[in-house]
Amino acid sequence: MKDVRILEIRQSVFADNDRQAEALRAELREKGVFLLNLMSSPGAGKTTTLMRTIEALGEVFRIGVMEADIDSDVDARTISQSGAKVIQLHTGGMCHLDAAMTRQGLEGLETGDVELAILENVGNLVCPAEFDTGASRNAMILSVPEGDDKPLKYPLMFSVCDVVLINKIDVLPYFDFDLEKCREYIRMRNPDARIIPICAKTGEGIDAWADWLRAEIRSWRGSMQ
Amino acid sequence: MKDVRILEIRQSVFADNDRQAEALRAELREKGVFLLNLMSSPGAGKTTTLMRTIEALGEVFRIGVMEADIDSDVDARTISQSGAKVIQLHTGGMCHLDAAMTRQGLEGLETGDVELAILENVGNLVCPAEFDTGASRNAMILSVPEGDDKPLKYPLMFSVCDVVLINKIDVLPYFDFDLEKCREYIRMRNPDARIIPICAKTGEGIDAWADWLRAEIRSWRGSMQ
Repeated sequence: MKDVRILEIRQSVFADNDRQAEALRAELREKGVFLLNLMSSPGAGKTTTLMRTIEALGEVFRIGVMEADIDSDVDARTISQSGAKVIQLHTGGMCHLDAAMTRQGLEGLETGDVELAILENVGNLVCPAEFDTGASRNAMILSVPEGDDKPLKYPLMFSVCDVVLINKIDVLPYFDFDLEKCREYIRMRNPDARIIPICAKTGEGIDAWADWLRAEIRSWRGSMQ
Repeated sequence: MKDVRILEIRQSVFADNDRQAEALRAELREKGVFLLNLMSSPGAGKTTTLMRTIEALGEVFRIGVMEADIDSDVDARTISQSGAKVIQLHTGGMCHLDAAMTRQGLEGLETGDVELAILENVGNLVCPAEFDTGASRNAMILSVPEGDDKPLKYPLMFSVCDVVLINKIDVLPYFDFDLEKCREYIRMRNPDARIIPICAKTGEGIDAWADWLRAEIRSWRGSMQ
């Protein structure tokens, strides 16, 4: 497996994260880089979902991936096998990325001709939801083994997301997870969120997710391609 | 289901959490209250494990439970069915509990004759590891669906724990989870941690966990019961 670049992110010094995020979003629009912020609990399947996303959209968009973790480079090494541009970000213990840290990551990635930049945020349902990264869209993955009650316990995460992927639906028979109840809880927090059940391992539902993402990027570009 | 008390925790104003934690630990020792801090990712099975723990040890120790969550009271309602004393703590968006917040929780629980107080911390593998709650012992649950690589990505959490419960071993056949590799990763972070595979749903391994906890409480008491 080839080596991957690791960037040690410096903790942000900006008090006004919202302003930093707006500035970054405007710059990325200027450059034509669509930034997707992907969040979830540890082990919900962000990296496997990303591998499937690159498989589905890698020929449509030039993709760059930033893998944020407190330690290790296992995810970036996995992504590097897909052929996509990738960088591992080490957060120095930080539990989330804010806009200034995301900016460091994008500079490290050297976006250049990247059209779709994906930030795999730190596995955490709390803190990442509190910090606007400057992303064009926020996505989160809830996995079946975590339980259908998570939108009740982590309200902010579900309310800031444009799309919720319900992953690991292949193991639905082995867990007490009520898909309809979960949809209802998500809608309580966020009536507008798109909800897509998937299984990143088998590929089920990935078409619907890729269609959604492609449509969002095209609508963001404001073109009718 | 009976109603449970909900306490809104105020954010802590103490800069020196370590000192607060030491003071709380000393007080609890004085009162004979053993405090267990239970941590994990969202949905790893903290509440189900607690139900089993109360089943196994409820006649040996008087148990009180603090359920910390950002929102909802679903866990406290579940625990209330066990007959154990329980209070729901709302953290006001906070991603962890520190010693001062834990103290508020203990006051709300009204420990009185409680011998074993259990704090179910916020579901999060990052921030709770950074704040000493004043607990006598730290326990964490890693569930099989999260993956065996979590000790590589969340080093601090694994290094602060006295015991790691590997939960949901009933679904091992459906996930790529290597138990031996996981043990090895945990030992890299923490050679002294006791590792106990369990299935809170079926009760497998709960005896070993209850034995460990009973022995720790007795050794903490310094008695030879």
